[in-house]
Amino acid sequence: MKKLITFEGIEGSGKSTQIKLVAEYLSRRNVCLIVTAEPSGTGIGRKIGSILFNREHNNMCAETEMFLFCAARSQHVREIIMPAIKQNKVVLCDRFSDATYAYQGAGRGLDNKFIKLINDYSSMLLKPDLTLLFDLPVEIGLQRANKRNDNLKESSSIDRFEKENMDFHRRIREGYLNILKNDPDRFRLIDANRDVETIQKDVRTYINNFINLQD
Amino acid sequence: MKKLITFEGIEGSGKSTQIKLVAEYLSRRNVCLIVTAEPSGTGIGRKIGSILFNREHNNMCAETEMFLFCAARSQHVREIIMPAIKQNKVVLCDRFSDATYAYQGAGRGLDNKFIKLINDYSSMLLKPDLTLLFDLPVEIGLQRANKRNDNLKESSSIDRFEKENMDFHRRIREGYLNILKNDPDRFRLIDANRDVETIQKDVRTYINNFINLQD
Repeated sequence: MKKLITFEGIEGSGKSTQIKLVAEYLSRRNVCLIVTAEPSGTGIGRKIGSILFNREHNNMCAETEMFLFCAARSQHVREIIMPAIKQNKVVLCDRFSDATYAYQGAGRGLDNKFIKLINDYSSMLLKPDLTLLFDLPVEIGLQRANKRNDNLKESSSIDRFEKENMDFHRRIREGYLNILKNDPDRFRLIDANRDVETIQKDVRTYINNFINLQD
Repeated sequence: MKKLITFEGIEGSGKSTQIKLVAEYLSRRNVCLIVTAEPSGTGIGRKIGSILFNREHNNMCAETEMFLFCAARSQHVREIIMPAIKQNKVVLCDRFSDATYAYQGAGRGLDNKFIKLINDYSSMLLKPDLTLLFDLPVEIGLQRANKRNDNLKESSSIDRFEKENMDFHRRIREGYLNILKNDPDRFRLIDANRDVETIQKDVRTYINNFINLQD
């Protein structure tokens, strides 16, 4: 019955745009849902995010980063996701526990076994039912993220993660693809190097099939 | 060789005053030391603290609280404590890993085994060499904390922990006394319900004996 659908991918993979579009579409079809995100899904999470993304925090340790994401997830699962699931709502979530394996595991080199322990604890063992992985070459993703920042006219809005080197982002992309390889039933791989409408068509198909709606 | 000395106790137990006095005393005797505190020992830790202590965060989950303290500790150990220990400095630290057992374990009811796992990880297995536990009845401690806040003319400075009920603070006091009972060699129990000078005399004796100085 539980329906937690997560959206994962590297910077600039277009997750946020796609979530917004599919949420509007599902709402028009009277699907009862919430849209949320990590770490910004709660008030406390947004404050944690402002520490995590602050580009001046150059010296933040990988372990600090990992615990901060788990703090935000603990709050998010207990305050937002679990109550929504209890009300039988579909939860569309922009990043969840897979991101910790991809970013702090593959990206920063922290131990996956320890990440599993604290992911399980912070998420109350909640696992996504369906995960859409938006995949594209990191060069294109980062170009898109930069363009988005330029459009916002905030060159300083490039955050602590976006300003990491190409290798870091490549490890994250590989990290995500490895998680998918080990849990293929849960994942749908989406080629994110296409136009918004074409990608949205795939997203709708996958989610419709999953929640048993006819397109 | 490692000399990490921690100061623990409930709100209003006078730890901070005592650390300041003993640090001045040791410095006059040319002991090479640093004074630090959790979670405020680093810039990132101070920002984490401002989330933790914000009295408007009434709905913060115990798990979120625990992970935030571990995030601050991870940064603190790697950025401040370990480098100081490598330089053979004595580290005087206002609260450390015992506080997580006392506050989030005994106080909030979280599992001690899990706390041990993440305490060990965040502290890089670093354990205090000597811990001074400042013990006094919670009623007196909280009165002192309130008086301190009044003196600062900031009635709103009563933080999220200070405004918890008496039972919470009693559990923390008991929690600390239990940790001491299980690790008596490391601990010195200090009756904190006495005047500053008398307590300071005890503090100096314990620390002098420990670092092999003559008083």
